[in-house]
Amino acid sequence: MPDVSLDEIEARTIAALTRHGAAPEVAASVADAVREAEATGNRICGLYYVESYCRQLGTGRVQGQAVPVVTRPRPGLVAVDAAYGFAQPAFAAGFPAALEAARANGVAALTVAHSHTATAMGYFTGQIARAGMVGLGLTNASPTVAAPGGRKRVIGTNPIAFSVPDGQGGVAMQFDFSTSATALGSITMAAEAGEAIPEGWAVDAEGRPTTDPQAALKGALSSAGGYKGWGFGLMAELLAAAMTGSVLSQNVHPLREDSGPPHDFGQFYLLIDPATAPDFAGAFGQIAAAVAADEGARLPGQGRAPRDPVGVPQDLWDTVVALGSG
Amino acid sequence: MPDVSLDEIEARTIAALTRHGAAPEVAASVADAVREAEATGNRICGLYYVESYCRQLGTGRVQGQAVPVVTRPRPGLVAVDAAYGFAQPAFAAGFPAALEAARANGVAALTVAHSHTATAMGYFTGQIARAGMVGLGLTNASPTVAAPGGRKRVIGTNPIAFSVPDGQGGVAMQFDFSTSATALGSITMAAEAGEAIPEGWAVDAEGRPTTDPQAALKGALSSAGGYKGWGFGLMAELLAAAMTGSVLSQNVHPLREDSGPPHDFGQFYLLIDPATAPDFAGAFGQIAAAVAADEGARLPGQGRAPRDPVGVPQDLWDTVVALGSG
Repeated sequence: MPDVSLDEIEARTIAALTRHGAAPEVAASVADAVREAEATGNRICGLYYVESYCRQLGTGRVQGQAVPVVTRPRPGLVAVDAAYGFAQPAFAAGFPAALEAARANGVAALTVAHSHTATAMGYFTGQIARAGMVGLGLTNASPTVAAPGGRKRVIGTNPIAFSVPDGQGGVAMQFDFSTSATALGSITMAAEAGEAIPEGWAVDAEGRPTTDPQAALKGALSSAGGYKGWGFGLMAELLAAAMTGSVLSQNVHPLREDSGPPHDFGQFYLLIDPATAPDFAGAFGQIAAAVAADEGARLPGQGRAPRDPVGVPQDLWDTVVALGSG
Repeated sequence: MPDVSLDEIEARTIAALTRHGAAPEVAASVADAVREAEATGNRICGLYYVESYCRQLGTGRVQGQAVPVVTRPRPGLVAVDAAYGFAQPAFAAGFPAALEAARANGVAALTVAHSHTATAMGYFTGQIARAGMVGLGLTNASPTVAAPGGRKRVIGTNPIAFSVPDGQGGVAMQFDFSTSATALGSITMAAEAGEAIPEGWAVDAEGRPTTDPQAALKGALSSAGGYKGWGFGLMAELLAAAMTGSVLSQNVHPLREDSGPPHDFGQFYLLIDPATAPDFAGAFGQIAAAVAADEGARLPGQGRAPRDPVGVPQDLWDTVVALGSG
């Protein structure tokens, strides 16, 4: 597994995407997200996606030349239509107006409609926090999760991210996780390894809890913490998909297929200005100090320093390099 | 256990509160929340609280004559100072302006600072939904919950509620739950019954997971789903307490003691106007239909019709009646 610098990862991603039809500014925007995913060890949202991006650029399943359309239907709401392009340039197109709206109104929403997979929501809420705002982000996903007691795949892993500014251009605390008990990839890996999965992760096709990954793949994932994760997953579904008019998770076409309808996901971001609080930084500092004084405890996102260079599997790196060559 | 009508519950609660010094409009506002809690079987947030309300009105730990102060520091933010009074009249004081702000801005926040215990957050988000807005509500609580891997009580059960309007003045979906694995009351009841508690509910004083309720009472509750509930609990702490300048959970004085500093809790509500979506009701209907077609599945809050009359334990009812008599 070769060590590759983040600059090289970014450059090769840009080369691959532009060679397959993405506009230069689109490729740069997506590559920045790939870079951050690799820097933070979030393998599944990094280089792993680049091949499907390129194939789907080729078939038109994602529009590499899409120009996001930004509107502001109300003073506290910035709405971006990604026009079946990538999620990163759509967010970037609306972000300055959303920041201005949050400063002016105390709180503002930024919505993205009709986008390709957003991958890591923390990538976006982190930007909100680095701009000085508390950021909340939600998106929907492909159908994998059944209701507690049910068996049908009604929603996706529907992740939620939350980032807190440190007041100095950085992120003081951040979480970013699915509302399901696990990701589908965990089930697939267990199936390939022939290992049992923990109770609570999934149900079989009849809705019965199962520890057999093969049965789980024919069934559905369960929500994190049962009805609590189910509630949060539905909240993400309603805010991200229903509020933006994007496709519901239940109707999403398999993400990695080369052709088919566009992903058509929605994202919902909330920006909250901590400057309206009497002393947000002081209160955060008290909480952080209490956690720091408790051995073994930590705030979400603490202790995850970015790495550079990072180890990339040889096959994956060869694929990305080839996609951008010739 | 006598059956008591909701009207009688409300009237006796008003009598008890006014007799102990609450202003009539304050008593009516609090009694409405007690009525809804009893109607929906939420025992712990109903009549059970009335005795401590009366005792704390007597000592001044809660201010029964407090007049909430409503300000609007930004167009999208309505901030209410409860002035150490009850949470319900404070919410009521700011709610009309928050609704107007949400209609005008697409999204608005309503914050309540320095209030007595809010009890059920769904009581408030339900009002937001019945007024036609999607409602999210968060509050902090007394210190009971340790970080994953830790042992110190850093935050509270910090509940989160979310309500969705049905477009006809009702609530289509609602959840309201703690971000902890369980409530402290579940541990206390298990201790009294001499029963073990499930794994994952709590840790002992050394931070080790325990199934012994006595050890748990000397330790701390765990978050729901481990680090996910911990993240959501911190989000509630930051939005409800830090954003409003109310007391942090770690510094909250025991809630049911007659005297001591005021509870001083904060609440954070978000109001989102579904009228800005292309077809919110249609999308919600598709999700609801998918859940309805899946036997054994249900949406949060479904199938919980209010009851009237409700059974009230004789001792509790006698206490409430006596508090309002003579």
